[in-house]
Amino acid sequence: MDDSKQIINTGLRGVTVASTRISHVDGEAGKLIYRGFPIFDLSDKTSYEEIVHLLLHESLPDPQALKTLNDRLVTNRAIPDNLIAALKTQPDNALPMDILQAAIPILANNDPDAAVLTIENAHRIAESLIAKIATIVAAWHRIRNHLEPIAPDPALNHAENFLYMMTGEQAEENTARFFDTCLVLHAEHSFNASTFSARQIASTRAHMYAAVGGAVGSLSGELHGGANTRVMQMLQKINSVEAIDGYINHVLETGGKLMGLGHAVYKTGDPRARLLAPMSKKLGELANNTKWYDMTVTLEEKGKRAFKEHKGIDIYPNVDFYSASLYHYMGIPADIFTPVFAVSRVAGWTAHVIEEQFGGADAKPALYRPASDYIGEYCGPAECSFIPMDKR
Amino acid sequence: MDDSKQIINTGLRGVTVASTRISHVDGEAGKLIYRGFPIFDLSDKTSYEEIVHLLLHESLPDPQALKTLNDRLVTNRAIPDNLIAALKTQPDNALPMDILQAAIPILANNDPDAAVLTIENAHRIAESLIAKIATIVAAWHRIRNHLEPIAPDPALNHAENFLYMMTGEQAEENTARFFDTCLVLHAEHSFNASTFSARQIASTRAHMYAAVGGAVGSLSGELHGGANTRVMQMLQKINSVEAIDGYINHVLETGGKLMGLGHAVYKTGDPRARLLAPMSKKLGELANNTKWYDMTVTLEEKGKRAFKEHKGIDIYPNVDFYSASLYHYMGIPADIFTPVFAVSRVAGWTAHVIEEQFGGADAKPALYRPASDYIGEYCGPAECSFIPMDKR
Repeated sequence: MDDSKQIINTGLRGVTVASTRISHVDGEAGKLIYRGFPIFDLSDKTSYEEIVHLLLHESLPDPQALKTLNDRLVTNRAIPDNLIAALKTQPDNALPMDILQAAIPILANNDPDAAVLTIENAHRIAESLIAKIATIVAAWHRIRNHLEPIAPDPALNHAENFLYMMTGEQAEENTARFFDTCLVLHAEHSFNASTFSARQIASTRAHMYAAVGGAVGSLSGELHGGANTRVMQMLQKINSVEAIDGYINHVLETGGKLMGLGHAVYKTGDPRARLLAPMSKKLGELANNTKWYDMTVTLEEKGKRAFKEHKGIDIYPNVDFYSASLYHYMGIPADIFTPVFAVSRVAGWTAHVIEEQFGGADAKPALYRPASDYIGEYCGPAECSFIPMDKR
Repeated sequence: MDDSKQIINTGLRGVTVASTRISHVDGEAGKLIYRGFPIFDLSDKTSYEEIVHLLLHESLPDPQALKTLNDRLVTNRAIPDNLIAALKTQPDNALPMDILQAAIPILANNDPDAAVLTIENAHRIAESLIAKIATIVAAWHRIRNHLEPIAPDPALNHAENFLYMMTGEQAEENTARFFDTCLVLHAEHSFNASTFSARQIASTRAHMYAAVGGAVGSLSGELHGGANTRVMQMLQKINSVEAIDGYINHVLETGGKLMGLGHAVYKTGDPRARLLAPMSKKLGELANNTKWYDMTVTLEEKGKRAFKEHKGIDIYPNVDFYSASLYHYMGIPADIFTPVFAVSRVAGWTAHVIEEQFGGADAKPALYRPASDYIGEYCGPAECSFIPMDKR
């Protein structure tokens, strides 16, 4: 196509590749909408389970529908013994995202209907993955610390149960409620890189596990989900409000960037960051240790001002910026922030896989198969003549 | 952008997303070029090891460079004990592509430098993956059959060694040579779905293992790599040259398709199919059993004629069409055809990951993050008003 040149090597930024009914990100207005509902309305009024219903089953559930969905999720929480056995063979220092990327196809190995491509089966696997990924992340965190995994507690909701499986103790009330809100906020975000990976893999008619496994790989990158871990590492490196000026100057001088400030799509601020900040503040106060929250606020204010003054650009906190201190206050170690993000985002991934494979009237194409521009010029404009081994 | 409408839901077909120096597919002319060299020149004159050098290190190796590359590949063939232990925990009936998708992140778990993003490290991991994926596929084939995996033999080349690790016996000379040619032919094919997945995952700065793991997921889909298995299943279902007419009529009547005939990019025939066909013929003759080859030839001729006559469309054999009978003659079971394809294609995937992450002057964008068109209309043109649980 004539306009293809302008698309090359731009990462498809601004290129509309598909229609979707799942969510909408309005980067200019700073809005995020899940199936019609603005995130500001959902964030503190719904549970993660309700959001799973909204994303997968396309409506906010009534109490009965919520109960039956919750029953299915609870039933699906346990992971196969052979997965736990396989995890126990792995080195303690494995990257938790690599562990998760391995665990998902192992779930497929245990599902004789993994490759049955019907919408009913896709919903079944989606709910199973949503239930089990939380268990996997918690189980690995214990196994690497030489502790036995803790069986899920059916009396707890998804958020409470995850924190319980990780620590063996019931979480403090605010912590559990805020973690539930984090799960709501992180559940879905349109065609971000990992979701696009999931859809792209699903477009080959690969099964749900294959697509979600690939999405986990995509999420692990530091430009995507890996960013929340790096925000915390940055805070730990700075380690005091007083050291922030020096750090910002160093970043400006070396042409670096402030982790968690800036977003590919939101140009006027990420709505999720505004919702996360007060939760971080509250947990800091409850812990009598607002250091990490205070550092985050100061870094936002001073970083924003410095980048505007010295580089003329506006930077705003993204979803990773306040997640870091918040998760830290919840007792979640920084190196599993990204798997914890996946615990939530799997709801969005699976909804997108279902839309990609069973989009109905908005049926999607056979598969994503873009073109590329060959610029190899090894032998000038002509093709290379083959040179036999003895002449090389 | 104004032209975005024409891109929606077309699977990016014909949309040029990136520049590349790795390979070129000329669908009109039926040409495939690896870094300047047409596949017709490479196919029977080079070994897979030479192609690995060409794709990863950008030149055909001289004898010394080939030897040092081969030494590195041989040294890298062994897989970690904890991977074999993990594989042994898995059900015998697991899908081999799911096993492979799980095994690759397990390799990452064993590599303390997995996430070091330098070009030297990327080359190291690429060669390690090329060496080890063959070992994984062969090992799983044995484990699922309750046989001990066979250690790689450093005296054998990549193709010979794979067949040896699978069967425990040295392959017949033609079989080994033809398998080497298959590895050459399948090594790379521009921005196909799995390669695009690998690049897309790598664009987040995820590591090589994460990208290749995702590519395996993408390859597993029946519209992509999964097709070769389905060609063989089709041949086994037809089971005689005489039954072909009936099968084609059935396919035409039910609006189905003939597996392995047709390709998203080649419009005048896939050059690889032309190279695979004589190898299938030869092995059939050597086995005194040309049935599968004869069926393939007849299916091509009659299928082509019937689809032209009844549907007015030209169909040509693609790479999967003759691979099926050829692999069958080599003693490779149909359900591991797709993993065997990955044994070769990993060379292309890793070359693309390196280009995506270290493209130099043709540096790639931050990450693939396309836009989407939100068409949700749950509450009419306006956003939905939140309804509390007790009002639902």
